[in-house]
Amino acid sequence: MNHDWWQVAARPLDEAARTLAAIRQQQLTKPRGSLGRLEQLTIHLAALQGCERPAVERLWIAIFAGDHGVAEEGVSPYPQAVTGQMLRNFAAGGAAISVLARQLGAELELLDLGTAEPLEPPPAGVRRLQLGRGTANFLRGPAMSAQQGRDALEAGRDSVRRARAAGAQLYIGGEMGIANTSSASALACALLERPATALVGPGTGLDAVGVARKIAVVERALVLHGAHAGEPLEILLRLGGFEIAALTGAYLACAQEGLPALVDGFICSVAALLAVRLNPACRDWLLFAHCGAEPGHRRVLEALAAEPLLELGLRLGEGSGAALAVPLLQLACRLHGEMATFAEAAVADAGR
Amino acid sequence: MNHDWWQVAARPLDEAARTLAAIRQQQLTKPRGSLGRLEQLTIHLAALQGCERPAVERLWIAIFAGDHGVAEEGVSPYPQAVTGQMLRNFAAGGAAISVLARQLGAELELLDLGTAEPLEPPPAGVRRLQLGRGTANFLRGPAMSAQQGRDALEAGRDSVRRARAAGAQLYIGGEMGIANTSSASALACALLERPATALVGPGTGLDAVGVARKIAVVERALVLHGAHAGEPLEILLRLGGFEIAALTGAYLACAQEGLPALVDGFICSVAALLAVRLNPACRDWLLFAHCGAEPGHRRVLEALAAEPLLELGLRLGEGSGAALAVPLLQLACRLHGEMATFAEAAVADAGR
Repeated sequence: MNHDWWQVAARPLDEAARTLAAIRQQQLTKPRGSLGRLEQLTIHLAALQGCERPAVERLWIAIFAGDHGVAEEGVSPYPQAVTGQMLRNFAAGGAAISVLARQLGAELELLDLGTAEPLEPPPAGVRRLQLGRGTANFLRGPAMSAQQGRDALEAGRDSVRRARAAGAQLYIGGEMGIANTSSASALACALLERPATALVGPGTGLDAVGVARKIAVVERALVLHGAHAGEPLEILLRLGGFEIAALTGAYLACAQEGLPALVDGFICSVAALLAVRLNPACRDWLLFAHCGAEPGHRRVLEALAAEPLLELGLRLGEGSGAALAVPLLQLACRLHGEMATFAEAAVADAGR
Repeated sequence: MNHDWWQVAARPLDEAARTLAAIRQQQLTKPRGSLGRLEQLTIHLAALQGCERPAVERLWIAIFAGDHGVAEEGVSPYPQAVTGQMLRNFAAGGAAISVLARQLGAELELLDLGTAEPLEPPPAGVRRLQLGRGTANFLRGPAMSAQQGRDALEAGRDSVRRARAAGAQLYIGGEMGIANTSSASALACALLERPATALVGPGTGLDAVGVARKIAVVERALVLHGAHAGEPLEILLRLGGFEIAALTGAYLACAQEGLPALVDGFICSVAALLAVRLNPACRDWLLFAHCGAEPGHRRVLEALAAEPLLELGLRLGEGSGAALAVPLLQLACRLHGEMATFAEAAVADAGR
């Protein structure tokens, strides 16, 4: 049987580095466990990076943008043109993720996977892939063709390879695409076998009437495509978006290339769930930044046994929640790497 | 009637700046509310700092250390000498808060309010106040004299004035003192009128037997001193510590001097509660960094109507949880200050 690239094994974790890091944590001048979740996070990063003292100073942020045919069902308060306009805003430095990337000193890669109206002139600094003029409306058939899906998955993989080649220590994927919470909600319902009412939320800001319309759209989509819920690749083609497929490919590639990924919000978490369904071993390589405001996010995180670092009611996307969590990882690594041990500082340990 | 200095009014908030910041938030290129709690935080900071675009780049971290007579009841797994040893570790750069202050570029001020054994030689970079050889055991009488309490409150105020004079934009208080979760728990029980079993926890790492002993100690303390629960200054003298009184004074002074304070963990939150009981208007000037592992912390935060930014199971103290939350405030301010508006970026707004 022919294997697709994403079925190739994930890189194994370095258990020796994990042990060394765990021993070091026990020796630092603080009560054991007193840094809470940051301690286990650092030890896990040590196993991922294969060194006793991990670091996440060199960051790669890739934003995947694409339009969604289902936007024509009125599932977003924003016009579809905003996807392209925001790509220009990312490139010009005015969007939230632009500000965050600048502050963090992160490399910011922008990828246009296919807007409804091709951007003319194309903004400087945006990679154009243009897999189509957005996806098709999944109420009329599959959102994308097998070739489009494969190309989008590869776009994510290629981004990760560029990040790896540039020496990145942490990969963040982000997304932009009007109506993409509808796509992500439909995917989550299919993958988790939950009804639309359990997972659909206001997205960027629908009112109650809008949410009801969105629930009806997702319910119809599940009637049309739900029979394929057990086939993650097929359900991705039918209900996904170009940017969601690219994120899925990116997370799979991160695990294969040995680059830890910090997962952003609801849409990214759905892509992470798809990646784990396609290749379960990639789960180890995924860290989760936050639990956002979209009600489906918590359910998806639970299905991934993810413990996000932040819970601030975010619902912006663009990788912004992941970027906001980066300093916690960086400071956790600095604490682990730079604190004195009890012996070095001549401090008495508990009960000794 | 003579007023004590801490009863002087807090600086009023700048409502014009709050309004300008709120208007600006509505215009930034993101769905309204999509940055969740960070939006309200930034608008509040604008009112505190009196400008449309607040900033928290210049940080002052003051660590108040003091010993506790109640340590002789066996309420901590650590020997009392650790208070002084950790002061040396702070000064030498090896403690958690040393690493965090370095990473954040913060001024780190260290204050010795009274260790059981005076530090000889005194570590360079530590302010010696030595209000006593630690507090008295509050099972035998009041923890401190009225003069010691007043001196400790003033030590906090003086620290804030130095921070203000140095141009700090955010004040963080931290603490170090073996047995100080016992003192803070007793204070919290008295102020919140809750039994010891509801608030006492393992602190730096007591086992179940140790927690039971600590509960018994706090229960005896409440029998001895609980009649004064309605008098915050008196209860501080009876059950507090030098560092807790100094933190209380610091928070009160922050409100008077117009310097926002970011409150750390359980002990700092108890000091914040004391400050608010002594002068309720100071509440506006207190931001809360995290909800820690100590069970009493959540109850104290609830009493303060505080919504902390992080919940990571921290229980270290030293101001470390507040330091870990600083980048969130900084990034929130950068987003508020640097993002493009819909008009500037030519992005369509919702429903327009």
